[in-house]
Amino acid sequence: MTSPSACWHLSYLHRIEYEVVDCPGVLDPHNDALLSVGNREDTGRFVIVDENVYRLRGAGIRNYFAHHRVDARIVAIPGGEQNKSVQTYLSLLTELDSYPIERRAEPIIVIGGGVLTDLAGFVAATYRRGVPHIKVPTTLMAYVDAAVGIKNGVNLNGHKNRLGSFEAPQKVLLDRTFLETLPRRHILNGVCEIVKLAVVADLPLLEMLEADGAGCIASKFQDERGARLLDHSIERMLGELEPNLLEENLSRTMDFGHTFVYGLETAAGCDVLHGEAVLLDVLLSATLAARRGMLSDADLKRILDLVATLGLVVNPVHLDPAELWDSVQERMLHRDGAQRIPLPDGLGKCVFVNDVTMEELQAACKELSMVKQS
Amino acid sequence: MTSPSACWHLSYLHRIEYEVVDCPGVLDPHNDALLSVGNREDTGRFVIVDENVYRLRGAGIRNYFAHHRVDARIVAIPGGEQNKSVQTYLSLLTELDSYPIERRAEPIIVIGGGVLTDLAGFVAATYRRGVPHIKVPTTLMAYVDAAVGIKNGVNLNGHKNRLGSFEAPQKVLLDRTFLETLPRRHILNGVCEIVKLAVVADLPLLEMLEADGAGCIASKFQDERGARLLDHSIERMLGELEPNLLEENLSRTMDFGHTFVYGLETAAGCDVLHGEAVLLDVLLSATLAARRGMLSDADLKRILDLVATLGLVVNPVHLDPAELWDSVQERMLHRDGAQRIPLPDGLGKCVFVNDVTMEELQAACKELSMVKQS
Repeated sequence: MTSPSACWHLSYLHRIEYEVVDCPGVLDPHNDALLSVGNREDTGRFVIVDENVYRLRGAGIRNYFAHHRVDARIVAIPGGEQNKSVQTYLSLLTELDSYPIERRAEPIIVIGGGVLTDLAGFVAATYRRGVPHIKVPTTLMAYVDAAVGIKNGVNLNGHKNRLGSFEAPQKVLLDRTFLETLPRRHILNGVCEIVKLAVVADLPLLEMLEADGAGCIASKFQDERGARLLDHSIERMLGELEPNLLEENLSRTMDFGHTFVYGLETAAGCDVLHGEAVLLDVLLSATLAARRGMLSDADLKRILDLVATLGLVVNPVHLDPAELWDSVQERMLHRDGAQRIPLPDGLGKCVFVNDVTMEELQAACKELSMVKQS
Repeated sequence: MTSPSACWHLSYLHRIEYEVVDCPGVLDPHNDALLSVGNREDTGRFVIVDENVYRLRGAGIRNYFAHHRVDARIVAIPGGEQNKSVQTYLSLLTELDSYPIERRAEPIIVIGGGVLTDLAGFVAATYRRGVPHIKVPTTLMAYVDAAVGIKNGVNLNGHKNRLGSFEAPQKVLLDRTFLETLPRRHILNGVCEIVKLAVVADLPLLEMLEADGAGCIASKFQDERGARLLDHSIERMLGELEPNLLEENLSRTMDFGHTFVYGLETAAGCDVLHGEAVLLDVLLSATLAARRGMLSDADLKRILDLVATLGLVVNPVHLDPAELWDSVQERMLHRDGAQRIPLPDGLGKCVFVNDVTMEELQAACKELSMVKQS
């Protein structure tokens, strides 16, 4: 602290640290990863579990904590975008506040998809100005994307993640076996984010998807190829996140697919999953990039072929250029006044552009809808 | 990031920085401190103002932004503990979300007391996962305590600051002239926090209070002695906060006065201000310390004499040992299972104790109530 004439400058270095760990059998009582942070004796945990997971694994979860003689207040709640609300956030807080936890030694545990890990992360970030938490993703979306970073959030006024914070978990524990019971649509939902990552940042991942993607989807990532593909994807994702963990740089490669169709899944009555909206955005962005000569026709076709090979559903939502343009305007506020739109500059590489026009967007929409029909 | 066998360790160094600045005439159009952070051209600000301040200074505030051609959405709301609620927090967010601001370049400005700076800080910390903010304290409590740190919060379920976060402002601008119109009770409210600081951490400050405190209160800190006393107090406070800005160390000297009577002002129908509750706690803690031989009888008398000299109101709330003990239990959760009670060990010095008993508390209560009656 320095004080020349009653101006005090405060400065503090904060090291943010956390681990993302492959952890098969996370609910096996002999696996103590879930309790590897915090008190072990005479202690309790507040555990937020997706209600589908609880239906399938509730006995295992209860048994795990009983085996370790840890008192667990287990709250099972539904996932789904419509539950990513201030109301759910407040009801979780009220439940948590009625089950006292110590401020540092009894981490909140969340076992669920991206909606739940985002909700629980925000609860943890704001209860008593921050208590620790551990995330166990159970959907592919959470596994490769939502749960491995430090962003949390809830929707407000129909706006996606309008409230939230950056709060590192203590650990993210990755157990692929949760994916085995995931409906195919939710497997594909997560695959869309892997495709996004591959197209804009990782050509080898794109090649893995071309070679093994369909098989991985069929096996729900339960075989060795699935494990390899997920590890590769997560490694790349974390490599993107870590150097810009607090988004001090607003030009983010990982915003690819999150510009034109952003938050479509938040709209009332809209049956679209986040990954499905991202995929639409990826295809539109790729079409735009191709029109600018940044992707060759062959590159664009390669993306569309991959989408077909993987059986990804391009949701037949009407691509309304006016709505897409509104989304760009909104994202510009989030990116501090500039478009900063990530586009692929050749497959697996990214540039940022600030000069996309409404006319260009209209033309790309038209072109994409023709491709989709052909 | 390191990855031995699919365990990724992420690490990121974040430097938290902000300034606390003496800034007389902050609303003078020729003073550009309020706009010294963020865009200056074609820009707007979301401004949260205490409704009493707005009544007295509204024209000046509007004129300030008009002079600088900055569009300002000014929201005037009442202070007071009962408004430090989730409901006010959400209504501010809804209002903010209807007035778009850019994520980094248009800081939220709050002009008000501790309740408002805490509310606005939490709004800023969580809107879009964090937007910048600037605090202008207008009460003595905010000026010397609430607004100069990075903690924000709202009450939940009758529990003080149960929700909140650590979020550094861009700047804290200190303008003593706001104190001139503050009711005497609110001047005294802030003085209680200065007394707390002096008793546990700053003997020279105690001496300043003894010599000049009553005069400062009479002048509402508008004279030179008042300026000197405030600067000294803030310097000491920041010196306490800076090395432990995120409270990684839970044994905090500044928790003195915040253990036994914590959050009394939050109780429904309780006409107590925060500083008044802190003063009660300080006197009880000092009595406890004296009973332990950590303060001499002369030291304890010196504190009580100072309280009388300053005309501080020891609110005649019934000191119920059972309620005080409940407060200790609650604070133990917040201090991760240990009491960590700061007590003065001689005037101006602090130790932490973990072995206060109910019996000891009862005896101290009894002793304090006798002193108060005498």
